[in-house]
Order: sequence, then structure tokens, then C-alpha cells
Amino acid sequence: MRIGFIGIGAMGNPMAKNLIDAGFDVTVWNRSGEKCQPLVAAGARQADSPAECATADVLITMLADDAALDAVLREHDLIGAMAAKTVHVNMATVSTATAVELAQRHASAGKAYVAAPVLGRPDLAAAAKLNIVAAGPADAIEQARPALGRIGAKVWPCGDEPVRANAIKLATNTMLVSAVESMAEATAMTAAHGIEPGDFLEIITSSIFSCPAYLGYAPAMEKRDYDNPQGFKLRLGAKDIDLALTAAHAGNVPMPMSATARERLAEAMAAGDGDKDLSVLAETARRRANV
Amino acid sequence: MRIGFIGIGAMGNPMAKNLIDAGFDVTVWNRSGEKCQPLVAAGARQADSPAECATADVLITMLADDAALDAVLREHDLIGAMAAKTVHVNMATVSTATAVELAQRHASAGKAYVAAPVLGRPDLAAAAKLNIVAAGPADAIEQARPALGRIGAKVWPCGDEPVRANAIKLATNTMLVSAVESMAEATAMTAAHGIEPGDFLEIITSSIFSCPAYLGYAPAMEKRDYDNPQGFKLRLGAKDIDLALTAAHAGNVPMPMSATARERLAEAMAAGDGDKDLSVLAETARRRANV
Amino acid sequence: MRIGFIGIGAMGNPMAKNLIDAGFDVTVWNRSGEKCQPLVAAGARQADSPAECATADVLITMLADDAALDAVLREHDLIGAMAAKTVHVNMATVSTATAVELAQRHASAGKAYVAAPVLGRPDLAAAAKLNIVAAGPADAIEQARPALGRIGAKVWPCGDEPVRANAIKLATNTMLVSAVESMAEATAMTAAHGIEPGDFLEIITSSIFSCPAYLGYAPAMEKRDYDNPQGFKLRLGAKDIDLALTAAHAGNVPMPMSATARERLAEAMAAGDGDKDLSVLAETARRRANV
Amino acid sequence: MRIGFIGIGAMGNPMAKNLIDAGFDVTVWNRSGEKCQPLVAAGARQADSPAECATADVLITMLADDAALDAVLREHDLIGAMAAKTVHVNMATVSTATAVELAQRHASAGKAYVAAPVLGRPDLAAAAKLNIVAAGPADAIEQARPALGRIGAKVWPCGDEPVRANAIKLATNTMLVSAVESMAEATAMTAAHGIEPGDFLEIITSSIFSCPAYLGYAPAMEKRDYDNPQGFKLRLGAKDIDLALTAAHAGNVPMPMSATARERLAEAMAAGDGDKDLSVLAETARRRANV
Repeated sequence: MRIGFIGIGAMGNPMAKNLIDAGFDVTVWNRSGEKCQPLVAAGARQADSPAECATADVLITMLADDAALDAVLREHDLIGAMAAKTVHVNMATVSTATAVELAQRHASAGKAYVAAPVLGRPDLAAAAKLNIVAAGPADAIEQARPALGRIGAKVWPCGDEPVRANAIKLATNTMLVSAVESMAEATAMTAAHGIEPGDFLEIITSSIFSCPAYLGYAPAMEKRDYDNPQGFKLRLGAKDIDLALTAAHAGNVPMPMSATARERLAEAMAAGDGDKDLSVLAETARRRANV
Repeated sequence: MRIGFIGIGAMGNPMAKNLIDAGFDVTVWNRSGEKCQPLVAAGARQADSPAECATADVLITMLADDAALDAVLREHDLIGAMAAKTVHVNMATVSTATAVELAQRHASAGKAYVAAPVLGRPDLAAAAKLNIVAAGPADAIEQARPALGRIGAKVWPCGDEPVRANAIKLATNTMLVSAVESMAEATAMTAAHGIEPGDFLEIITSSIFSCPAYLGYAPAMEKRDYDNPQGFKLRLGAKDIDLALTAAHAGNVPMPMSATARERLAEAMAAGDGDKDLSVLAETARRRANV
Repeated sequence: MRIGFIGIGAMGNPMAKNLIDAGFDVTVWNRSGEKCQPLVAAGARQADSPAECATADVLITMLADDAALDAVLREHDLIGAMAAKTVHVNMATVSTATAVELAQRHASAGKAYVAAPVLGRPDLAAAAKLNIVAAGPADAIEQARPALGRIGAKVWPCGDEPVRANAIKLATNTMLVSAVESMAEATAMTAAHGIEPGDFLEIITSSIFSCPAYLGYAPAMEKRDYDNPQGFKLRLGAKDIDLALTAAHAGNVPMPMSATARERLAEAMAAGDGDKDLSVLAETARRRANV
Repeated sequence: MRIGFIGIGAMGNPMAKNLIDAGFDVTVWNRSGEKCQPLVAAGARQADSPAECATADVLITMLADDAALDAVLREHDLIGAMAAKTVHVNMATVSTATAVELAQRHASAGKAYVAAPVLGRPDLAAAAKLNIVAAGPADAIEQARPALGRIGAKVWPCGDEPVRANAIKLATNTMLVSAVESMAEATAMTAAHGIEPGDFLEIITSSIFSCPAYLGYAPAMEKRDYDNPQGFKLRLGAKDIDLALTAAHAGNVPMPMSATARERLAEAMAAGDGDKDLSVLAETARRRANV
């Protein structure tokens, strides 16, 4: 099976690598072409233009945000360049408005489109343990499944309409950011009572909070080291919350917890922590409390 | 080992039962004496007065709130009635102010006091799978450990000062209530996008939120049945957040997520849901969003 | 002095009327042309195209939102159609991003641009009592001042960069929405203590809250009648808060009060109150509290 | 008319002074007796015990908080010491629970009790321009009115039940704290756009926010000087919000704006600003935004 892969960043790189290692015939493209080199060394072919990726059996896009995706699609008429058989699987987190629009544009052009955003950070991507939420035509999902099965531990089909997968992804990230901010605040509160953050964090992540949403962020809070290159950059969390609140407000759904957390992210960014791991919220919470 | 157990409610009942079943010599007391009957049938002795429980090797109290504990302690001079060897283990969730005061009152009287609040609901209590956070003199914790080992899956010692255990418990409950409210809001948001709550909840609790804080509440949200007698009553969650915010504010620690969640609990109580399981927050979120 | 006026809505209509009544030579245009009829009857000339308005001494635009403004500007090359002498005064509330972009586009074309958003509702517009916050080149503001002086009670110059006026307007509206939501919550709280909303509202608006931000909304809360056609539509308040939060977040400024209020607006819209006056927040607050 | 006045603090001192200056026969008492000296110099008599104040026609108490009031009442059996004719007018801000309890204790003893909390800071107290919200038996309010008329600009009777006056006072203070925090956030937001705080504050307090709630705090924000001894100490604002939230939650009334503001007050106190004027929230907002 031939796979085109566009967007070789912190997530795209390990995802594409897993596909190459699994023996797929992978063609990669990235705006900054040098990022493709390690994948070429691993066996990929580097395309001169995104359109070369579009004729594969499965075209995967993993671009940074709505604007980057839109730019690539429009500049290179990527939808027009797709083969009749190609399934476009967009694995990036995009807005629900973009999700709806993309589904329409593909449908108008008679092309297959699947939204398949992932749950997990670069380290899980490297381990092929992502959870993939996939929505789109059932046969298109089936065509992509062999590839998706090498990228993630599990594929969760959730219906025909691609936007649903994006809504699920965004909603999940609101929960994640709220969880990390709550943990940060609770850590500051216990620290003010003389409890070592590491002791508190061990108790909670060994008991009722023993799941990746907490386990993935507690160690950095304990070590007070937020520079993990495999982490989830705080400013990307802010971007996701913005997309989620926009999606929620479009349907008049109040999300007071997310709105509260969003302002804490702004505070962290004002302090210069936007490019650190999301767990740096622990420092914002401690600074606020002067502990 | 002789154990006195005061407070036979939704939590105290299964905890005491596990001690009886483990072969301890257990004397029980409850203000409404008839609640002791099942335990007497299981082998416990029923005290005529709380003071009779106070001469055991370990005196466990598991009363509803600070006021109930204070009333029993004062009306019956319970601290005065303790034997020299007795260790008082208070397993209820109390305020940090009460925790500090109780430690002082026991110390003044030359009696041993351990704070050992538990993480877990009545179903975990019945299964002896609670997590117990214990603080107090190390030898007192050791004396109580055989009993605690039959009540919980794990005992987490966290220092000499009893108040620390209470601070940890309250902080943990702020995280729990925030987690459930976040899950409720995310469920409403995805529902507004046409996603079945059960589908969304399965994905998240099978992936990055696969821990008791979510798994314990998602099924009720899916079934929209919030009358689980083994659940965590929403109004008790509100009480815990009030205690946590008071403890936080005493140290000038801001907790914006908990403060936001607290107002949602008020809204749920205004709607008549205070005696339902905490998961009923899903209904409040859906009602607000009209989904 | 010749004035072109584009955008004859709830605000634009009384503003243009005041200019006509003051004797200015006013040419009006609106996408739905029939809305111009009362102004024509009062003495205005109706343009066939927006470009006809662009050659006046002062071109005032008062369009509903960024998209409407952008559409008119681009479809009709309005900036290109401006005379060398024309000053474009944009009195609508737009995003700070649009404000910056418009200033650049006018500057590139060698045309004068002033941002002059207004504080006040349609009733104040009719009474020519708006407060006008104006930013742009000082001579351009001076050229427009005779017109602005007939629209508002006071012009507040605030510097060369148009975006500043928009930032001030958006910040003011965050305060306004927060004020009305706070008043709504306080009214619900006192109502729960048996106090008639009208009694409470009279006390506060006769003492420390005796200013338009409260006086403009308290009577509707007392009468529980939110259909004032001269009012400030709740959904426009939500739009303004969205613009303000976007502007704030662009500079990493946390605005927790506005973020909290925004979710209450979503709740009101979910209840079907988006087209009512902002004061309908009193009903949302009472419903939440069941009073 | 004889007046007893207990509690000579930042508010009580100017209030008592105005009564002395008006020619009333005033007896004063304060736990720290030396605070009474300026009033004695002005013509008051200093009591040796609070009970000496209790036989006057009107007994006014203006103590710091519920605990201080309760201590004086109990230690000196103040209610028992009241003459049959005496009307006790409690002008301090107390909890609604205390308000209800005090009404009952006076009623049981056959004594007259009026709650008459005030709106305004020490500077308004000195100018006799306070707004007084009075609740209690109509004849008792009438008996006190000559004195109240010298303390405030206006007396607002609001019914028989004293607790109503306290609920109104607390609700008003939630609005005040929210207003000041909103103004602080808006000032930070505009400062991030290059606008001088003084320019922004002048515009808003000259237009839609031209009332004491804003005018009383904007000058300090402009000057960045928060040490006004006539100001409203931030930690007292926090105390009032705590009382208000407790009163609201007792009736299951959600107050999300107040809850949000409360956490900002904690942040300000953590920064060491608890004893500064409430307007110091501007600094907290600017620090958060790094402007």
C-alpha cells in the first residue's frame, strides 16, 4: 500500500517512521524539506511537491493548524490532485468549522475524506500507542485502517461525519487541560500545607488518578523540569482550548471549566512558558500562591 | 486487637464490617443505634456510649462532618475516656482547622491521634480497596496499621502532622470534582455535535482517562441514572470543596478550577440533585446547553 | 460638509438621522436598501452603491461585524473609491486584528482612517449622547469632529493608532457585560433571601452603582421585560466578549471575569435569549438558582 | 437622645464623631480603649464596659466581624443589659447566619434589634454620606432614625427581617469587588495595547461607569498608590465575599462572578497586598499579564 504523508513535525515524524518501519511505501513532504531527511534515511521517498503525495492509496496530513492545512490544500490544489482511489486522512487537530468545510470540499470533488485526530503526545506516537478517533465513510476508514493500525494502539470509529472526530478530540483536550490545571492547583494547595509535591503526586497517580492524563504530567511537576521535547507544548494546549470553546459556543454549550483554564494558560504564556510542557502550569499555580 | 468504631454510615458500615470479618474484636457505636444491627449480627458488640469504644487499642471515628465529630467528642469527653494505649484514628474528611485543633487537644491530653482519611466510595470500602492517607506519630500509625490494612488496599504515610493527611484528602477531592465536572461539560459539548455520550465516554475512559476518577462516574452519565446508593453524594462533594477552599484561602492559595466547579454544584443542588451521585453534573451541563 | 454613511441598522439609523437633522449633506447606503427610506424622507440621498458614499468629506461606516465591513470594502473597492480628502471613520466595534489591518490598508493607499467606536445603546444614539472613542491621525479626527460632535456627547481622542480605540471599546464592553452579569447574580442572591429585585436594584442604582452601565439594565430586570428594541442584544455582547478575549489573548492578558461571563452568555443563548436585551441575564441567574 | 457606640475602628470612629458633633449624648466603648480618646476629646463619654452603652436609647455596634461581635455580646451579656426601650442597631457587615441568630436572641429576650449595614468607605463615613440599608421592626428603625440620619445620606428600609439588610449589603459588595476586578483586568488589557491606564480610566469613569463603585478606585489605579488609609482593605473584601458566597450557597444560588473574583483576591493576598486598598487588584492583573 502506498502512503503519502504531509507534515513532518513533532508528531508527524514518529508516525511516518512507524509506517516506514512497517514496510509501507511512504512518500513524505514537509514545507521545511530538511525535516524529511531522517525518514528518507529510514526508507521514505521525499516528494518535490505535496501533490505527489496525493495519488497514494492513503494521503495522511498532520499539519500544525488550520491555516497551515488550508495553505497546503489551496496552494497545491491537493484535493484536485488526489487520485480517485485516494483516501485523505487528516490526523491533525483542526477546528470543527474547518472539519465541516473540508468534508464538503472533498465531497464536492468526489474524493474520500476521513478525520482521524489522535490522543497522545510524541512519546506515544513513537511507541505507536496513540488512540485514533476516526470519522468518515466506513469504507474509507477501512481502506486506511492498515496504516492507522501501525500508528496507533486503537482506532475508534465514530460515524460518518468527519467533524465528530474533531469534536471528540477537542472535548478530550479540554478535559486534559482542566485535569493538568486542577492537579497544578491541588499541588500548590498541598505545598502550602508543607507537603512535598512529589509525595502528593505519587499518592494521587497511584490511586484514583492513575491514568495517562495525570501520569504524563506529574513527573515533570515533581522534578520541576518542563523542557521535555516529547511533551505537549502549553501554547498548543491554548490553541486547542480556543478551538474547543469556539466549537462549544457555536452550539451555545457553556464550558466554564475550560474557560477558567484558558485564562491560566494566558497567564503562563505571559510568564514566558508557552513553549514549555503543559505541566508548567504547576509553576504558575505556585507563583500565584507564593509557595 | 480491640477496635472501637464510631460512626456507622454509608462508609463506616462496610469498613467496620471488614474489620469484623478479619477477626478483630470490634465494638461499634452510632447515634442512631439501629444502624449497628447488621454489624452486631456479623459479630460486633454494640456500645451503650461512645466512651466504651474509647478504651480499645484503636478507636476509629468515621462521622459525617466536623460538627458531628465535635459533638461526640465533647458530649462524651471521648479524648478523656481514651486509654493510655489507645490510638484515635479519625478517618473522616474534616477541615484543616479541625485537624489542627484535634491534634492539639489529643497532645494536651497525652493521647495519640492519627488522621487517616480515605480515597474511595462505599463500593471500594466494601471491597477493602480504599486508599488511606495517614498522618500522625509513626508509632501510632504502626499500631493502627493491622486494622487499616483490612480497610484499604494501601496506606500512604505522610508525616507527623495529622493536618497533612486532611489537606491531601481535600486537595484530591478538588481534583475529583473538577474531573467529573470537566467530563460532564465535554459530554455536553460532544452531544451538541451529535455524539452519543456513551460513545464519547467509552473512548476517553479507555484511553487517557482510564482511572477510577472517571471510570467511577462515566457509567452513570451514560445510563443517565444517578441514584447509585454506593455513589458519592453531590452535596458531600460541595461540602468537601468548601473545606478545601477554606483550607486553600487560609494560605492564600488561589484555586480557580475548584471555585468554578463549586458554583456548578450549587446549580445542581438548586435543581434538586444534591442527594444524587456526583455524576449528575452531566445533567446540569446538558440542561445549561439545552442538549 | 458632505457625509457618506454606510450601515443603517439599529445604531446607524439614529446616528445618521442626527447628522441629517444637523444640516449635513448626507448620502446613505445599506445592503438592504429599504432601511434607508426613513432617512431619505428626512433629507438624505440614497446611494446606489457604497462607492458613492466614499467621495464625501467624511465616510462613516457602521456595519454589523468584521465580515460585513470586509465584504463591503472588498466588493466595492471602497478604499480605492475614497477621494484624497476623504476621512474614513469606522464607528463599528471590530476586532483589534481587523483594526490593525484596516489602518495598514488605508495607509498603503494613502487614505485617512479613523477608528471611532461608540459607547452607548440605540437610545443614547438617538439622543446624540454617545461617547465616542477616536484614534487615528489628529488632523483626520479634526476633520471628522463636526460630524462626530452631532453624534455623541463627547469625543475622546486616544492617539494615532486606530487599534487603540477598538481596544478601549472592547475592554469597556467586558466591564459592561461583567457588571450586568454581576448585578444579575446579586439579584438572584437577594431574591433567594426574600428581597424583591426592584427593591434591591433601586438601592444599588441610587447609591454606589448610579451610572449608565447599571441604570441601563436594572429597569428591565425589575420589570422582567427584555424585549426593548433599543436595548443591547445579548448575542452582540457575546460577540464583543469574543473579540475582547481574542485581543487579550493575543497579548497573553488573562481576563478571568470576562471568561466567566462569556459562558453565562452561552447559557442564555442556549435558553433562546440571544436576541433579547443583555439584562435577560437576570433570568438565567434566577433559573440557575431556582428563584 | 442617648447613644451607646461599641466598636471604634476605621468606620466606627467617623460615624461616632458625626453623632457627637450633631449633639447626641454619646457613650463609646472599644476593646482597645485608647482608640476612644479622640471621641472623648470631642465630647463623648467613655464607658468602662460595653454594658454601660446598652442602656442608651440606641445602641450601635460596629465591630470587625462576626466573632468580635459575638465575643462582646456573650462576655458582657449585652442583650441582657439592654434597657427595655433600647434599640440595638448593628451596622457591621455580618454573615446572614449571624443575622438570623441575633434576631432570634433579641426576640427571645424581648429586645429590639435592627440590622443596618452601610455602603461606603471611611471617607464617606467621615462625610456622613453613607447609604444605610436598614431592616427590623418599623418602630425600632424609626427610633434610630435621628441617629442614622446623621451617619448617612440616606436610609433604605427593607423590611422586618434584619437578615435582609445583611443579604443586600453582601450582595452589593459582591458587585463592588467584581466591578473593581473587571476594571483591573480591562486596564491590563488596554495597557497591553499601549494605552495609559489613566487615559482608559478617565474615559470609562466619565461615561458609562461614572459612579462611586468605579470612581472610588480608579484614581488609585492611575497613580499606582494603594495605601489610602480611607480605602477598603482588600482582605475585608475577601471576608465579605466569603460571607456572601456562604449566604448564596445556603440557598443554592450560584455566583460564578464572585467565585472567580474571590480567587483573584487570594492571589493578591499571596502577593502581600491584603492590607492595601482593593484597587491594588490592578497590580495583580498587570503582573499576571506581564504589563
